[in-house]
Amino acid sequence: MELDNSLIDKLTLKEKAALVSGKDFWYTAKIDHSDLPVIMMTDGPSGLRKQVDNPEGLSLNDSVQAVCFPASALTACSFNRQKLNMLGHQLGLAAKAEGISVLLGPGINLKRSPLAGRNFEYFSEDPYLAGELAAAYVKGVQKEHVGVSVKHFAANNRENQRFTVSSNIDERTLREIYLSAFEKVVKKAEPATLMSSYNSINGTPSSQNKWLLTDILRNEWNFKGLVMSDWGAVSDHATAIKAGLDLEMPGKGEESVQEIIDAVQNGNLSEQDLNKSVSRVIKMVEDWHLSGNETKFYDMDKQHEFARELAADSFVLLKNNQSVLPIKPNDKIAIVGQLAANPRYQGSGSSHVNPYHLVTPLDRINQVRTDAVFEPGYSLDDDNIDSEEIGKAVGISKNVDKVIVFAGYPERMESEGFDKDNIDLPANQNKLIQEISKVNKNVIVVLQNGSVVNMPWADNVAAILETYLAGEAVGEATWDVLSGSVNPSGRLAETFPVKLEDNPSFLSFGSDLENENYREGLFIGYRYYDKKKMPVRFPFGFGLSYTTFDYEQLRTGVREDDVQVELLVKNTGKYAGSQSIQVYVGNLTSMVEKPVKTLAGFDKIHLEPGEEKSVTITLDKRAFSWYDTSHKRWQSDNGHYKIFIGESSLDIKQQTTVNIRWNDEDFEPVNSGTYISELMKRPNFDSSMNSLGLQKILAGISDDGPTAKMFKNMPLRAATTMGVTPEQIKELINKLNE
Amino acid sequence: MELDNSLIDKLTLKEKAALVSGKDFWYTAKIDHSDLPVIMMTDGPSGLRKQVDNPEGLSLNDSVQAVCFPASALTACSFNRQKLNMLGHQLGLAAKAEGISVLLGPGINLKRSPLAGRNFEYFSEDPYLAGELAAAYVKGVQKEHVGVSVKHFAANNRENQRFTVSSNIDERTLREIYLSAFEKVVKKAEPATLMSSYNSINGTPSSQNKWLLTDILRNEWNFKGLVMSDWGAVSDHATAIKAGLDLEMPGKGEESVQEIIDAVQNGNLSEQDLNKSVSRVIKMVEDWHLSGNETKFYDMDKQHEFARELAADSFVLLKNNQSVLPIKPNDKIAIVGQLAANPRYQGSGSSHVNPYHLVTPLDRINQVRTDAVFEPGYSLDDDNIDSEEIGKAVGISKNVDKVIVFAGYPERMESEGFDKDNIDLPANQNKLIQEISKVNKNVIVVLQNGSVVNMPWADNVAAILETYLAGEAVGEATWDVLSGSVNPSGRLAETFPVKLEDNPSFLSFGSDLENENYREGLFIGYRYYDKKKMPVRFPFGFGLSYTTFDYEQLRTGVREDDVQVELLVKNTGKYAGSQSIQVYVGNLTSMVEKPVKTLAGFDKIHLEPGEEKSVTITLDKRAFSWYDTSHKRWQSDNGHYKIFIGESSLDIKQQTTVNIRWNDEDFEPVNSGTYISELMKRPNFDSSMNSLGLQKILAGISDDGPTAKMFKNMPLRAATTMGVTPEQIKELINKLNE
Repeated sequence: MELDNSLIDKLTLKEKAALVSGKDFWYTAKIDHSDLPVIMMTDGPSGLRKQVDNPEGLSLNDSVQAVCFPASALTACSFNRQKLNMLGHQLGLAAKAEGISVLLGPGINLKRSPLAGRNFEYFSEDPYLAGELAAAYVKGVQKEHVGVSVKHFAANNRENQRFTVSSNIDERTLREIYLSAFEKVVKKAEPATLMSSYNSINGTPSSQNKWLLTDILRNEWNFKGLVMSDWGAVSDHATAIKAGLDLEMPGKGEESVQEIIDAVQNGNLSEQDLNKSVSRVIKMVEDWHLSGNETKFYDMDKQHEFARELAADSFVLLKNNQSVLPIKPNDKIAIVGQLAANPRYQGSGSSHVNPYHLVTPLDRINQVRTDAVFEPGYSLDDDNIDSEEIGKAVGISKNVDKVIVFAGYPERMESEGFDKDNIDLPANQNKLIQEISKVNKNVIVVLQNGSVVNMPWADNVAAILETYLAGEAVGEATWDVLSGSVNPSGRLAETFPVKLEDNPSFLSFGSDLENENYREGLFIGYRYYDKKKMPVRFPFGFGLSYTTFDYEQLRTGVREDDVQVELLVKNTGKYAGSQSIQVYVGNLTSMVEKPVKTLAGFDKIHLEPGEEKSVTITLDKRAFSWYDTSHKRWQSDNGHYKIFIGESSLDIKQQTTVNIRWNDEDFEPVNSGTYISELMKRPNFDSSMNSLGLQKILAGISDDGPTAKMFKNMPLRAATTMGVTPEQIKELINKLNE
Repeated sequence: MELDNSLIDKLTLKEKAALVSGKDFWYTAKIDHSDLPVIMMTDGPSGLRKQVDNPEGLSLNDSVQAVCFPASALTACSFNRQKLNMLGHQLGLAAKAEGISVLLGPGINLKRSPLAGRNFEYFSEDPYLAGELAAAYVKGVQKEHVGVSVKHFAANNRENQRFTVSSNIDERTLREIYLSAFEKVVKKAEPATLMSSYNSINGTPSSQNKWLLTDILRNEWNFKGLVMSDWGAVSDHATAIKAGLDLEMPGKGEESVQEIIDAVQNGNLSEQDLNKSVSRVIKMVEDWHLSGNETKFYDMDKQHEFARELAADSFVLLKNNQSVLPIKPNDKIAIVGQLAANPRYQGSGSSHVNPYHLVTPLDRINQVRTDAVFEPGYSLDDDNIDSEEIGKAVGISKNVDKVIVFAGYPERMESEGFDKDNIDLPANQNKLIQEISKVNKNVIVVLQNGSVVNMPWADNVAAILETYLAGEAVGEATWDVLSGSVNPSGRLAETFPVKLEDNPSFLSFGSDLENENYREGLFIGYRYYDKKKMPVRFPFGFGLSYTTFDYEQLRTGVREDDVQVELLVKNTGKYAGSQSIQVYVGNLTSMVEKPVKTLAGFDKIHLEPGEEKSVTITLDKRAFSWYDTSHKRWQSDNGHYKIFIGESSLDIKQQTTVNIRWNDEDFEPVNSGTYISELMKRPNFDSSMNSLGLQKILAGISDDGPTAKMFKNMPLRAATTMGVTPEQIKELINKLNE
């Protein structure tokens, strides 16, 4: 990085010390007698949370009005890069109009446990999906000259003790899973900043982690932007700066300045290291400050319509027996559930938005179906089963064609800042659904939740529509899909397990106050269920449509650095609809731990009834690679790989095999530790053994009996147990290496 | 340790170098012109494998005749310390008569994966059970003045690449699981020697692992014996000696001597370090050599009878619908399966015994039931389904009352030296069982196998008797239980999963050539299935009896260093029988990863019909402890623990709770990193907050809403986000620490 010497040379130590902390909660420091602007940052992955008043503290529920878009848990289900890019663009427009230079978000951490309190703010259990969608989003925001801070770098997958817990993860898992989406966003979208996470990684706080912030982020990935801390994450500011953290947020006022001055003066921090961070703060401010001449207007109604479109494009239809959906114009319907009237449509915590125009499901249904009856059925304030309320709801459900039950997590159960204890809906909701399903066979459950839920009633209802946290247009978008004016096309970005205990992180998640051990390693989400052949409630990538699709003519082409996949997709049903073509790769070759398959490409296309389209998807070399920690490099082994086309990770419609030859193929030199089974693969093994007079031993290891198998599974040095002399072993090594 | 200076001072460097390697495969080195005897070692956990001829090589199938006892996979199911002690005693008698000073075995590694080739030689998936039984066995052998080499130290849980693979295991898991049985045996039974394993642990070969062989084994556990290498395990002898390995086995002749001389002369090995190992070799030889005047006779027929008794005491009756077993005197029976005539009754590899007197099941049944018909049904040589053979077996099965089908792994599938690829019986056996179960509803499957098998036919047969590898009296013992002359009392020492993929190690086992990652950590065997609420085929500790038992009056007493459990057990059925009282402890207290319950005590008692006995079982402090790696100590936390009495790990008959108070109870000092939720537990928190004028904040964190929960889950330093000043935080720390 080139230092901006013109300004930095003029700064006093005190001014430099001031610049590496925020002035307060939301602004960069002001340097008197300089032209350096001050910029404002604001929370807002799903809409701006520009706090009014109280710049020196956190005030989670007071902010300017803004359009509340769907949470990332939902937008990820769109499997739609273009829509995520448009979302980013809308947020960029809003931010610019509000005088905001840097938008804090999106969070792109992976959903490791359904208990994690902040899952609603994250995209997926799959790093490829999370990385692709986040890159599209970041490009959309930054196109409007508003910087993005991608968070939380890295491995922030639990809320309890989040300020101090250590995420203990082996390096291969970090590289292939938990760092992977960040790597993609940095390389593809060049975000203005990254936000370091609260947690430690393998014992070192992320904000003080030189390996993470400098060796990997800047030296390997070539990140040119700034690293700021999550709010309150810094406990040792001098060490953080040395590690590569540039900006402590929020500032602690005079104390922040003084501790840096002290650190430089007592030799604990070099001015050179400080200058690196100062110059990155200056660069961020210069690159992303606003002129002040930007228009203050943006079209919030248009944004509301986009919020509606994005939500409807993302909802996941999980079940639809007997085509109970879409609702027909003459269906007599009952609406049940307090969440229809008081929907859960956004997350709690720093992503909370003061919505511009909330339309509840009940609002929308009352507009279009004046004959619909409604009963709340339960209270959101507690779990108590109110038999009277349930009775009323059952009453109105008896004589209608279809019952739409709204259910989900109340806000008290799910928020940034703490993890859930279980994934059960409140008892009053589960009871309500069970009772209604006894009197009406056409029960349609609409779910509002930030993360996976148990569905003990899944087999007893006719339809399930997963709407996650849909944003302020929740009511319109929900009715759009229920009524069929939008054909659902969302696909699950996370696996719904049969029960919480099935989750791969269950053995360790949240059990230790100081350590979170990522025992399952690479096997997050579907990588685990798939390999363990464990039944799931709904698999990753799953989602129904009102139409059906067919896949034909799968062809592949291995190129110099990637693999091209082509196929023909046809809409074979009666509704127009969109489909996410999901491509998975299965490594049949590498002799390391590996999942059965991983998502390596996707594309969403729209097809009219009967229409067919050719789709071409390019799979990066990375999809055929694993991270070799002993050689510190990505490794693509020569050999065979499966290519799967799936309607989910489990429902494979087409498959083929490719043969990758991207490496020179040489045998490693033989030494006394080389296994005999490996030597037997070499063309000159038999002749070498024969030339040493070891015909009898050669014969003895050439069958499949237990003794031969035992001997083959020995390194050459142990061939003495077969009667080979140490001298013969040495000669054999020489011959084999010739 | 005190060095034997009298002899060691007289030895030349060359003589010392000679002593730290074996003379050949089985003998210690001979020092000319000295009185130091030479001793012989021999394989033999389940019977002696004293090799004849060929002392300089391995010859797995030529050895002197010896009684072949059941393999450890079966004896562990006895849950009977006394029987294991008697087994050891018999082996000691045999070894002494054969002029053997050190018996190599038992292997006490844990059964982590059903695929591991050597599981048949090991006891259990549970370290407490393995350690208790092995300690009893070692005491039995050593009582006859024959030393035991307990193997393979440590974490040798896979055969493929066993010479080089690294077992990668976190320290807590090592301490609590994989080292635990060794620790118990060392402390309770003081074996003459330990044998270091082939594999590495976390990258360091066990034979060169100072942390393992010196820091833990000698310094922490106070082991006074010798450490020898597994055969061919040493690749760097000087480093091995420095780490604490005393004896390289087998010797490599002149090369072994010269490399030590060279290492001392070039300064790579100090003579002081060499002397430590030399003196331990001398001590072993002096302590355990035989006088030469021992009797050469031992009663092999009596040993055969003990082998029969031990096997019958260990067989596990897994299923017995409608009391199809025991077979009645007038039942017309058919015997099916080649394994009835050619039983699999012992393991393959170094534990292989040349049996004294093999009695096959068919031999035995032909003696007592001359009317029984027999068909082999399948070949043991391959998996091919021979319809004609199956047809003949089905034919004889149609018109009998009961069919006894013998099934199991042929030797070609299961041996030391390589791992299995799956846990399926050969296709011809599974097919045979399915076909016979279609024509006769009283099918009794008798299993012969070294390790867990899949049982796709389990629901279609009436009874399953697991006999593992039963030793040379297999035929007599099997009929003893089938006929009811012995009431089965074996209990599974390992979980039978529904399918291989369910096993906790499945994601990693055998997948990487160089590394075996123990990802599941503490959650081996039932610790995993229990916590994950995963259905199993048969749980750990499970086994049926021909009678039934009742458990009453469970009482507990917490003492200074242990917990006493007392209960009354009654035989409520019509047969006399034995029962293993299993006591499990569940930690409800410690804030670390932990299983639901672990086996902490057991005792086997015999009861006549209607008889009742009071049983007292003492639970060690260790059962209430976890290993705290950050403080390098065992930690027993004050609080509540469940005590379970089970007929298996899943079938809990009685339970209670104890309150342990073995520690002083002090709060840790508060610092800025202490979580607010922790501070709120302190009696002086409210008053301290009030005295600082922070009433409003105190009120704000005192409810259960999401914002309060988020703030409580912050360390004190982050209280600035609530508006507490840094000065107030400092004052609060002072007040709380007062």
